[in-house]
Amino acid sequence: MIDTVPATIAPKVIDEFARELGPGGVLTPEDDLGRYEASPNLWSGRAGLVLRPRCTEEVRSSLRIARSSNLQVLPQGANSGLVGASVPDVSGGQVVLSTERLRSSFLLDAASRTLTASAGWTLAEIQDRLAEDGLRFPIEVGSNPNVGGMVSTNTAGANVIRYGDVRKRLLGVQAVLPDRAGTVIDTLSPLRKRNEGFDATQLFVGTQGRYGVVTAATVEVDPLPRARAAAWISLAINADLSSAVAHFERSCGETLTSFELLSPAGIALLKGQHSRLLQRLPCVDRDCLLIEVGTHDSSAEALLQRSLESAADKGLLEDATTGDVESLWEIRRIVPAITERMEPALSYDVSVPRGDISRLRTTLRDCLAASFPSVIPIELGHVADGGLHLILALPSGTPTVGHEQVGLDRLVFDIVVQGHGGSFSAEHGVGPKNHHAYRRYVPEELRLLREQLRQLCDPDDVLVGWAGQRAHGPILMPE
Amino acid sequence: MIDTVPATIAPKVIDEFARELGPGGVLTPEDDLGRYEASPNLWSGRAGLVLRPRCTEEVRSSLRIARSSNLQVLPQGANSGLVGASVPDVSGGQVVLSTERLRSSFLLDAASRTLTASAGWTLAEIQDRLAEDGLRFPIEVGSNPNVGGMVSTNTAGANVIRYGDVRKRLLGVQAVLPDRAGTVIDTLSPLRKRNEGFDATQLFVGTQGRYGVVTAATVEVDPLPRARAAAWISLAINADLSSAVAHFERSCGETLTSFELLSPAGIALLKGQHSRLLQRLPCVDRDCLLIEVGTHDSSAEALLQRSLESAADKGLLEDATTGDVESLWEIRRIVPAITERMEPALSYDVSVPRGDISRLRTTLRDCLAASFPSVIPIELGHVADGGLHLILALPSGTPTVGHEQVGLDRLVFDIVVQGHGGSFSAEHGVGPKNHHAYRRYVPEELRLLREQLRQLCDPDDVLVGWAGQRAHGPILMPE
Repeated sequence: MIDTVPATIAPKVIDEFARELGPGGVLTPEDDLGRYEASPNLWSGRAGLVLRPRCTEEVRSSLRIARSSNLQVLPQGANSGLVGASVPDVSGGQVVLSTERLRSSFLLDAASRTLTASAGWTLAEIQDRLAEDGLRFPIEVGSNPNVGGMVSTNTAGANVIRYGDVRKRLLGVQAVLPDRAGTVIDTLSPLRKRNEGFDATQLFVGTQGRYGVVTAATVEVDPLPRARAAAWISLAINADLSSAVAHFERSCGETLTSFELLSPAGIALLKGQHSRLLQRLPCVDRDCLLIEVGTHDSSAEALLQRSLESAADKGLLEDATTGDVESLWEIRRIVPAITERMEPALSYDVSVPRGDISRLRTTLRDCLAASFPSVIPIELGHVADGGLHLILALPSGTPTVGHEQVGLDRLVFDIVVQGHGGSFSAEHGVGPKNHHAYRRYVPEELRLLREQLRQLCDPDDVLVGWAGQRAHGPILMPE
Repeated sequence: MIDTVPATIAPKVIDEFARELGPGGVLTPEDDLGRYEASPNLWSGRAGLVLRPRCTEEVRSSLRIARSSNLQVLPQGANSGLVGASVPDVSGGQVVLSTERLRSSFLLDAASRTLTASAGWTLAEIQDRLAEDGLRFPIEVGSNPNVGGMVSTNTAGANVIRYGDVRKRLLGVQAVLPDRAGTVIDTLSPLRKRNEGFDATQLFVGTQGRYGVVTAATVEVDPLPRARAAAWISLAINADLSSAVAHFERSCGETLTSFELLSPAGIALLKGQHSRLLQRLPCVDRDCLLIEVGTHDSSAEALLQRSLESAADKGLLEDATTGDVESLWEIRRIVPAITERMEPALSYDVSVPRGDISRLRTTLRDCLAASFPSVIPIELGHVADGGLHLILALPSGTPTVGHEQVGLDRLVFDIVVQGHGGSFSAEHGVGPKNHHAYRRYVPEELRLLREQLRQLCDPDDVLVGWAGQRAHGPILMPE
């Protein structure tokens, strides 16, 4: 329960916001602010106000009033992040600036294969509209972020091996700086080539709204594959994950779209409520891989079949199941849906050079077994990108706040970052969940550079953010 | 001829550089500095000194001494740029910092498919070494830049449609800032996923050494295709270029590697000395396209053949020639080799949204015919990326300096930038050749942001660069 006495925002400031943003533009604590205050995995705080501007000019007004009233503003997309960075602190004094009503632009340039869309359009909406033209934005994640959030967190997911992350698909942005001039940086354009100096677009990619509020983006979109095929395979007991990556990259080449790992402890979660899914998995006590290929012609299935046969010839796989692509993906999607509700549990989103994934897993398991023998590690992730989602199921009754978490965080992150040159945040960004890691592992010169950039873009300290030296107030952990 | 009296650098400063950089580390005007002073297309100046550090620490020393001696430093890669940005001004007072001897690292991580290489390794050297492992760095350009230069200019070229430019292949850099602390920013890593805040790597991409000296980079490398196939095709007289792009993207899908345009005026250049190449072109009075596909299996040739047949069915093509891939590329490569030596002539490297290429060409031809009827436009380029290299052959005796050039530049750039939302520099960057366009077309807020970033990275104004508000001294145009 939240028991802090909330800070209040002066009525005349609220009136000023309301005058600028019009009907429905300002929500106060008297409204139901729940979905702006709590993230899907239950990090939560309390918003002093929620602003819902409809256009770039209203974003400028919002930031201008906040600055002159000395209020802190937290930009928020679909609030689907998993590190708590998109929820306000518990003070009740922060202003959430939601980008959900920024929807004025949706411009598909089919000849250029580009889409320019306002920040509020969601990924699912975009896919629906693009599918009508045989196109898609090739970002595949379990949640439904909006355009502003995808740019601000550099969304990645399960198709990165083929299509890259949002940064690689991004051609331009529009963003409003919280500076005195209300500067609008606008690089929106279907242009694929422009080399005129520093690409200002990059300031807003993966920086979580720290330097400005992203109001729109232009992205490259891709043709939908004409055929897709997928398989769950069980790795042979002595097969090396790197050899499997190399095999499927060589044999599927440019068509390899996904390469997902699910460990036996992850498979075990399907027992009981989801046991019908278990029947589609080939061999439940081995590491499983979900492989997907997509082709511009009809060859996907035959190609994958040949690739599986040659993998078997090489002794890489124990068994494999092919079938309807979406049904096979259901297995992959249900696992994080289970682990996100598990408790007590801790989850990590880490990466290492992909050739090191097997060594990382061994080291983690050995060290956990030695120091925390009752913890069960569950592994899944985009391992061909070197990404690993690690969930640690804790013994019933273990408190996840305080010493235990810090001890496990330290163990996991030291192994990932110091032992394997990896990252404590592969995809999810920096928030209250992992900010202690930011301070511990990010070299001082990078933290300083980011702080200097913040001072340049936000000299009056209007925007709230985590990937910098200044953190905002306390926040509630998931209960 | 250069007739300016060169500035001289104090002997004791030269001694200090020599002490830090060791044998061969410092070249003076008494040595032959020609290759550091003139670019391939003959922009030239005069270097006061050339520094050739061998390691990151020597780069730090070089910048430290230059800063304390109030000398301006121009970072230089292979000096293969085409806008004059990598040659010193005519004062003789600037110090060229060549990265050619930075060669200590060459680390191929085959499991991660990544290469970490010092700035001095050239593209050709990299391709030779990678080919031994069945890999390549998928950047295809006519010149032979080095790693530092490729990062600093965001090299693009003929394979961008499939593999992207250097920014999209880049995983990290090491760069030395010219600040008082001699800060080294180091994001070198085979990691494909790391989202911990602003990606400092981006400060050094396409910024021409303006913010720091790139000393090494980590890039993603790719398997060599198992099969390649190429065709020169003549577009049907009424075929639209956008329809051709759409057709080949759909029918070749993920295997489409290059899509190059050559206009009839470009083809005409092959008459005489290179007329044997003409025989391989299908129809010399039509726009020609060079299409290349590459596959992980042996299907390239059959796939391209099917794609050509369906293009013919749609009435898109007049005629086509297939054959040995490298022989067909010879035609494409010889044309810029001819145009670079043409005089008097002016060349432009522009881009527009790719769906606008045909409209751009029509407008340019119409406006040139109206205002400069004796000018012959020659067009080639990576048109599926919206890129166009435009060469204007001028009547014999036309001076290319002064009014005529400014008039043509204004006409071309106004049409490209203001008429079609394009860029005056698609690939080549900003230098003395097009700096007037930088000031005219780049919005003030972007120029200001870049200047603020420069002040942040280079508070004492040590580095020389063009993509900012401050330009350095005069430079000689090609004679």
